[in-house]
Amino acid sequence: MDSRNDSTERAPNEAPAFFVHPKGLVDSEDVGEGTRVWAFAHVLKGAKIGSHCNIGECSFVENGAVLGDHVTIKNGVQVWWGVTCEDYVFVGPNATFTNDHIPRSGGPKPEGEPTWERTHVGTGASIGANATIIAPVKLGAYCLVGAGSVVTRDVPPHALVMGNPAQAAGWVCSCGMRLSSELQCVKCAKQFVRVGSPEQGLAEASA
Amino acid sequence: MDSRNDSTERAPNEAPAFFVHPKGLVDSEDVGEGTRVWAFAHVLKGAKIGSHCNIGECSFVENGAVLGDHVTIKNGVQVWWGVTCEDYVFVGPNATFTNDHIPRSGGPKPEGEPTWERTHVGTGASIGANATIIAPVKLGAYCLVGAGSVVTRDVPPHALVMGNPAQAAGWVCSCGMRLSSELQCVKCAKQFVRVGSPEQGLAEASA
Amino acid sequence: MDSRNDSTERAPNEAPAFFVHPKGLVDSEDVGEGTRVWAFAHVLKGAKIGSHCNIGECSFVENGAVLGDHVTIKNGVQVWWGVTCEDYVFVGPNATFTNDHIPRSGGPKPEGEPTWERTHVGTGASIGANATIIAPVKLGAYCLVGAGSVVTRDVPPHALVMGNPAQAAGWVCSCGMRLSSELQCVKCAKQFVRVGSPEQGLAEASA
Repeated sequence: MDSRNDSTERAPNEAPAFFVHPKGLVDSEDVGEGTRVWAFAHVLKGAKIGSHCNIGECSFVENGAVLGDHVTIKNGVQVWWGVTCEDYVFVGPNATFTNDHIPRSGGPKPEGEPTWERTHVGTGASIGANATIIAPVKLGAYCLVGAGSVVTRDVPPHALVMGNPAQAAGWVCSCGMRLSSELQCVKCAKQFVRVGSPEQGLAEASA
Repeated sequence: MDSRNDSTERAPNEAPAFFVHPKGLVDSEDVGEGTRVWAFAHVLKGAKIGSHCNIGECSFVENGAVLGDHVTIKNGVQVWWGVTCEDYVFVGPNATFTNDHIPRSGGPKPEGEPTWERTHVGTGASIGANATIIAPVKLGAYCLVGAGSVVTRDVPPHALVMGNPAQAAGWVCSCGMRLSSELQCVKCAKQFVRVGSPEQGLAEASA
Repeated sequence: MDSRNDSTERAPNEAPAFFVHPKGLVDSEDVGEGTRVWAFAHVLKGAKIGSHCNIGECSFVENGAVLGDHVTIKNGVQVWWGVTCEDYVFVGPNATFTNDHIPRSGGPKPEGEPTWERTHVGTGASIGANATIIAPVKLGAYCLVGAGSVVTRDVPPHALVMGNPAQAAGWVCSCGMRLSSELQCVKCAKQFVRVGSPEQGLAEASA
């Protein structure tokens, strides 16, 4: 069975450098080269997506969302207004962002109603499957949020967090592997050093 | 790229007072005026939806589900048979309802097999992103279920709950803001009073 | 409104013994008789699905995934490469599998990069709504994973687990009901016995 024969036709003069599955929807004109958008995914007008990204099925990228290059968004993820993912970020399946700390549906609101909150995900960070990210929050570069975790506060660069609410559980290398107590990668042997306070996390030691 | 040119055509004499995205599906004839149903969402025949609701992408409203007016269902939410949401309810993205306490797939079942369980969500209540609601359960009016929480028992009106399993964490105003220890809204100054036992929650104090 | 009039047409000589909703996608040729695939679900080429399965909306079955007979996959579930579900498995809505313990998006990887991990779900097991299953892991036959749980290690046959991380919380019958402290079903009276170590779980006592 070929379900693709009612697919959207592309006019000959439109030759986007990115791929959209016939059942995917892309309304944005700001999608980079080599990016792939899969079935039942929807990229809204005003969303900004870099090059070589992968946008999984049933995912959603809203106007005001910003993705860098080489970002992976797995299935069932919504990237709302106010969410920025730097280059090489990984967002696992059904992981859930938010941008409204006090959600209410319609009805009268008091004076000075809340504005939307922002989430910033640093370069190379990974968010595990089905994790929940409660804005406003910053996830540091190369941090790793365990699958199913609920993140309620900032995560330092290279930190591993897990649980509900998510708690510090160690440190990880840029490659994702755990660091030893001496802050060295157990796999690729890269050495890291603390940068100021624990909240500032780790940085790679200069060679 | 306009992905909408293979959209479902609407016959001239059908002029629904609600909006369905060309990639959304509405089989129910019981949808109120001003309601919007977005792409890859599906409202089944027998589902009842009030006016001015917003049904997000990849959401699903089953026969036997009932939504009041001004209800917001964000993306990736399934509203099963047995779930009722009163007016002004907010259901966050990927929040998950259930209606089968003892799920098994097919096969022989013992005598007196379980019936589906019900969930009732009171007026103005909000369910945070990626929360799990385990039926049978009642969520009281204007309660707030924290994002990523797992609700295993009834939530009183105006209660704030969070965690896995969800635990009481304070009280919130109709506007969503926290109440002080004197049960007054820190923002709009509304005063609340306890109503009988803690399980009965709060009500707005009469002026 | 009939949204189905742009449905995929099936050629007369293709008469699959399974059902695909006009808005569902099935690229696999290995789907059993009586199986139903619903709207916005996608079964990839190379996925193997048995007979009489039910694949919910917005779900995804990847190449390399294997489902037995009578398996229920509710809405919003992704069954990745490396996931095998035996007969009569139930997977609740928005439950999330994984196959990459150390997810990173692109970029340089160290030598000997990680391979995908596998998940095996035994006959008759049930995974509750919005649960997270962290591979590699084995879920034993007829076990029951509570809704919203995060499974980080193997679950014995007939075990009930819940929480984040999921912990042992009792035992359940093949029918799903709790067992008494004497390991007898409170409903259908089946008797069970321990099989070796606790990790090996229970088996039905011979008559």
